[in-house]
Amino acid sequence: MSAVEEDLDSAGPQSFEGRAVGRLLDALGRPAVEFVLWSGERIASPGVRPVVKIHIKDRGTLYGLIRNPHVRFGDAYSEGRIDIEGDVVALCETAYRGSQAVGGSKSFLHKVASWLQRPHENTLTGSRENIHRHYDIGNAFYSMWLGTTMAYTCAYYPSESATLDEAQVAKMHHVSRKMRLRPGETVVEAGFGWGALALHMAKHYGVKVRAFNISHEQVVFARERAKREGLDASVEYIEDDYRNITGKYDAFVSVGMLEHVGADNYPHLGAIARNVLGANGRGLIHSIGRNRAQPLHPWIEKRIFPGAYPPALSEFAQIFEPNGLSILDVENIRLHYAKTCMHWMDLYEASTDKVKAMFDEKFVRMWRLYLAGSIAAFTTGTLQLFQVVFATKENNDIPLTREYMYSTT
Amino acid sequence: MSAVEEDLDSAGPQSFEGRAVGRLLDALGRPAVEFVLWSGERIASPGVRPVVKIHIKDRGTLYGLIRNPHVRFGDAYSEGRIDIEGDVVALCETAYRGSQAVGGSKSFLHKVASWLQRPHENTLTGSRENIHRHYDIGNAFYSMWLGTTMAYTCAYYPSESATLDEAQVAKMHHVSRKMRLRPGETVVEAGFGWGALALHMAKHYGVKVRAFNISHEQVVFARERAKREGLDASVEYIEDDYRNITGKYDAFVSVGMLEHVGADNYPHLGAIARNVLGANGRGLIHSIGRNRAQPLHPWIEKRIFPGAYPPALSEFAQIFEPNGLSILDVENIRLHYAKTCMHWMDLYEASTDKVKAMFDEKFVRMWRLYLAGSIAAFTTGTLQLFQVVFATKENNDIPLTREYMYSTT
Repeated sequence: MSAVEEDLDSAGPQSFEGRAVGRLLDALGRPAVEFVLWSGERIASPGVRPVVKIHIKDRGTLYGLIRNPHVRFGDAYSEGRIDIEGDVVALCETAYRGSQAVGGSKSFLHKVASWLQRPHENTLTGSRENIHRHYDIGNAFYSMWLGTTMAYTCAYYPSESATLDEAQVAKMHHVSRKMRLRPGETVVEAGFGWGALALHMAKHYGVKVRAFNISHEQVVFARERAKREGLDASVEYIEDDYRNITGKYDAFVSVGMLEHVGADNYPHLGAIARNVLGANGRGLIHSIGRNRAQPLHPWIEKRIFPGAYPPALSEFAQIFEPNGLSILDVENIRLHYAKTCMHWMDLYEASTDKVKAMFDEKFVRMWRLYLAGSIAAFTTGTLQLFQVVFATKENNDIPLTREYMYSTT
Repeated sequence: MSAVEEDLDSAGPQSFEGRAVGRLLDALGRPAVEFVLWSGERIASPGVRPVVKIHIKDRGTLYGLIRNPHVRFGDAYSEGRIDIEGDVVALCETAYRGSQAVGGSKSFLHKVASWLQRPHENTLTGSRENIHRHYDIGNAFYSMWLGTTMAYTCAYYPSESATLDEAQVAKMHHVSRKMRLRPGETVVEAGFGWGALALHMAKHYGVKVRAFNISHEQVVFARERAKREGLDASVEYIEDDYRNITGKYDAFVSVGMLEHVGADNYPHLGAIARNVLGANGRGLIHSIGRNRAQPLHPWIEKRIFPGAYPPALSEFAQIFEPNGLSILDVENIRLHYAKTCMHWMDLYEASTDKVKAMFDEKFVRMWRLYLAGSIAAFTTGTLQLFQVVFATKENNDIPLTREYMYSTT
């Protein structure tokens, strides 16, 4: 019997289920939602004006929700056993704010859910399996909503009105400028997605790039792209784990891979960066992060990103601190990721017929909830986006000011 | 018997003392120095070209140096029992590089020295005593070499040719811009030195400032200054510990106080900042830091800065992470502190006659070594300087780019 069930012995104006939902709302920090049960009964937290209605279609779904709300909500919504009347993003925002109010990871429900859903381990084989599950869904699927750059990481909006493609290109310039890439230099990239950044650096900054990735579908796609753009002499895409990076380079870059590395592996990642950089080496790591250490939302970890973990900055620093690397610059651009996800969601919603034909309705709903939840996580500050510029500790080739990041020459 | 002494049984071309110095050089990571003993005997690490000569005037000084080199070197130099022939900064740089080569805090000598010199505790009374020992030496002394701003913290050089005063003013603008201060807002400052930043913010950004400091001499100086500049209605200087800050403010700022707070007190400092800020609150903390956690140089802690500790960024983050604060921006400007200390040292060396009249020759030499060591610590990357901008986690009033920090309007 759960804590929620225990408190339901006393009679009241509502049904047993109605009172259970009331208790659930309390445990979730009283989000601004109204539950509508299969019986037509409606329950909201007292004094809270609902922004969204949640229809629960049967008793079994409600009981599942009470036992493990963080995982079961996403599954039941995907399965069509829960419907959302109103804005899915607004629902996710009120849920995140409620979760923060009850202490986030400290809440009993979150603890239980986290224990049930411990992250999948990032061993060499584990990583390959985890990455395969997310990134090898199919290039055709991702190309429907990532825009023409095929960059599946936070974009950088120089202005509020920038388009997704413009912001992805601006992000690649921002990253390249931060590393002060010079023609003829060499760059190693850990985790290259569909290869956009490597091509961008080679084309616009005249560098040679060796890029590592373990997603087979992405490697095939990127190699074709490099050939098509005539950059295959400057960019080498290698299907291998970042832990097997060798050689010597002027710069080390990783955009959106750290989420899959696992905090235990950070010192080793930093040792690899340190080993492949010369005395004047520098680099940039771009990753989703947290204001404080806590596990990823258990439904996201289970259904979308097995093995993923966004670090707090104190954890992020463990890449650098044990390895003679110096942190030069940290920029938190979380609101850019909210905008990026909004653009992705618009494109995604315009393609749901095709997504349904490719997979099924359950998949359509699952990814809708994931994208809406991602927007909400960044607008509410539940997730952060850190870009960290670093250099070897003895590197004194550091400009006095950061104005060079903002020059347009 | 120390490790150095144990290894001196076998005979060799050098005297017992000469071999002891050779072992000492090895333990210190073979810095590029030549020791000249009272007997005229000269010892340098094989294959290393010395940049500086160290004259040791008697046997007792050498033995003290072998037992506890990190503390005894500074004391013996101050006392005139060691002389330095050549550039004191170059000596400190080669010493720091050697120390990094043998693993810094991991070296046996460093461990022993650190244990002998555990930091003075920063309780409410301890802090008052520690701060008194450094900052109440006398305003007249500091005014000889800090420049007209009387700012005893890292300046910010917009160009290589900026003067000390220009760079101190630029630093205050940089800090104010980073916090995006608006006319009519309120700011609380933890640790205000001689009051320069509070006056600058009031004068140029139209804010009201309440500033806290426990150094009595500084408080008196700052209050007179505010009255003289006609800003005493906008700036209130309070002689009290930061732990007693109360009220509500738009921004929280602390420049050069964190070094004296002690890592154990960081979560409490963050809780204070969080409690006095509204939902749209933000702030900036500026502090000397480290690439990795390690104790302050034991001689500096003993003779110059009792109780001081410069944190690694992972430690620095403990101000924010437990307290619902979000790190927005980190800038490492260590080379600016090297330039600042160079400017201070030039002014200091031009005033040594007056310093000697005010104190004595020992004090003159002690502060010379401290300033030279500080330059070297920042040029070699032994110390860092972090400016961290933060906001309450729910604050979404964040500009898209950091260009506003660099606009001159």
